[in-house]
Amino acid sequence: MAAALEETPVSYEDLAAIERDFDNVETEIIRKQTELTTPLYASRQKTLSTIPNFWPLVLEQAPPDIDQYIQPSDSALLLSSLTSFSVSRFEAPTEPRSISLRFEFSDNEYFEDAVLEKRFWYRRAGDGWQGLVSEPVGIKWREGRDLCGGLLGLVERAYASCPSASAANKKEERKVTAEQKELAKTIENTGMGGLSFFAFFGFIGRRISAEENAVAVQEAGKGGVRAAEDGDEGEDMDDLELDMSLEIFPDGEELALAFADDLWPGAIKYFTQAQEQDALSDADFEDSDAEIEIDDLDQQEDGADDDADARPTKKQRSS
Amino acid sequence: MAAALEETPVSYEDLAAIERDFDNVETEIIRKQTELTTPLYASRQKTLSTIPNFWPLVLEQAPPDIDQYIQPSDSALLLSSLTSFSVSRFEAPTEPRSISLRFEFSDNEYFEDAVLEKRFWYRRAGDGWQGLVSEPVGIKWREGRDLCGGLLGLVERAYASCPSASAANKKEERKVTAEQKELAKTIENTGMGGLSFFAFFGFIGRRISAEENAVAVQEAGKGGVRAAEDGDEGEDMDDLELDMSLEIFPDGEELALAFADDLWPGAIKYFTQAQEQDALSDADFEDSDAEIEIDDLDQQEDGADDDADARPTKKQRSS
Repeated sequence: MAAALEETPVSYEDLAAIERDFDNVETEIIRKQTELTTPLYASRQKTLSTIPNFWPLVLEQAPPDIDQYIQPSDSALLLSSLTSFSVSRFEAPTEPRSISLRFEFSDNEYFEDAVLEKRFWYRRAGDGWQGLVSEPVGIKWREGRDLCGGLLGLVERAYASCPSASAANKKEERKVTAEQKELAKTIENTGMGGLSFFAFFGFIGRRISAEENAVAVQEAGKGGVRAAEDGDEGEDMDDLELDMSLEIFPDGEELALAFADDLWPGAIKYFTQAQEQDALSDADFEDSDAEIEIDDLDQQEDGADDDADARPTKKQRSS
Repeated sequence: MAAALEETPVSYEDLAAIERDFDNVETEIIRKQTELTTPLYASRQKTLSTIPNFWPLVLEQAPPDIDQYIQPSDSALLLSSLTSFSVSRFEAPTEPRSISLRFEFSDNEYFEDAVLEKRFWYRRAGDGWQGLVSEPVGIKWREGRDLCGGLLGLVERAYASCPSASAANKKEERKVTAEQKELAKTIENTGMGGLSFFAFFGFIGRRISAEENAVAVQEAGKGGVRAAEDGDEGEDMDDLELDMSLEIFPDGEELALAFADDLWPGAIKYFTQAQEQDALSDADFEDSDAEIEIDDLDQQEDGADDDADARPTKKQRSS
């Protein structure tokens, strides 16, 4: 079917202007939601902290868009040592879409850190892109227990070795540093299948400085995306490709949002699911007729439910 | 891992009370959002109506949780004849979670209706369940063109033949009507694989009357779920199982929410995707080096992206 925007009185700019209006309302809504829910979450957290294994039980029930990144060895560590998890919106009310994920751990044989906190800044780029960006967070792995095989350390060093692609000096050609070359080579040699969940802490995304964001937000407010200057777009693309090739966790933004928008608000729902599964697997099925009917219903529903497919695997693996 | 709620000072009722507070805030947020976005959507709709094929192009890009229900024959009908789509929250501000989906069609060879509108009421049951319920919507299929093979008509007749399971007379044992038996037999004989998207219009869900909802909402506000009376729960379960066995589109609520919370707010995003795909497939790849690099990047991302897997299939099928 032919796309027919050219034959209408509507331009891309008109559509972008509509999206901008919705975007402003959405931000306002998240701002309001943050204001109303922050005290509720604080009070919830106090209650939840008295329930042993609350967060490991929630993680066991995590939906596929989180579960798919948790390898069996990650699972062992998370289930035995995760003591708390929380999400905060640290730039609210100014930018309520920036989020911080905080994982707390008991003493464990894998790493020395008691807290791993990863911040995601909501940023706008000059080309109109918007989304979450982050900085690599290091983990103090114990000798021989690094689930990421040294990748996180390499990412930290490569990140520190090179100024942001979007810094004021962006017109100068960016040199690929020795640390970046080492990281790129390691990524190439490793292959990234079966990568540990903890590589998530190495996610960077697009490198958009606070300054570039501020300029882009201001220009967007005026109704335009920055016009590409001669050769400018080409350079941006090169930088973007370089950054992408050094990214060890390309789905970092999606995973962060799954934690913030699903696992965190749905924690009690997932915990209750865990309790029900536990009760079900403990139960004596005295009434075997009734049980068969329930099974039948479950099977009917399973056909169209991806969640149902993913969860039993997880349950088998981690309990 | 043992679930340990029993060993803590926290009860299920405490958790339910926390969820209730969040629920109230969420409803308030949706109310506010509806208030702020309704005028924006009305203005957007005016602009979109001037773009030929806007909604078919959006549907072509629909995410998997919608796309999975659209069969090739549905696709042919939707792509050639869907002229408009809209979502409204017809019980706002009182109950902003009730939604109505409105599909408008040009003259077509499949059915006589120019508009198919399906309403979903947000309801609470006495047992604490909350969600969307609906009523069957009939379609005036043209001779020999019924994509649902008569199922929608059967559902309408079975629905009309039997008062709500939750009506005041619920203590009386509900008799299974002849129309219900016919529907159940047809479902059993048909097998429901490859079912038409239009069976969605037959979704009913739980049969919760406005009265039962009002009582349940009031009791929930007081902090409790209705205690089951002797034998009461068993009867409710029987009714529920009967209703489930007569449901031709068990995922109706999920699909309604995917339309309302994803396709509708994201329409311009999906349309722009369609335009970009169109531009890509038309392009002359003069710079073949650059093209290879872009392909490489795409492949890196595809591995962990379900959407990317699902869309090309759709594109092949419908364009």
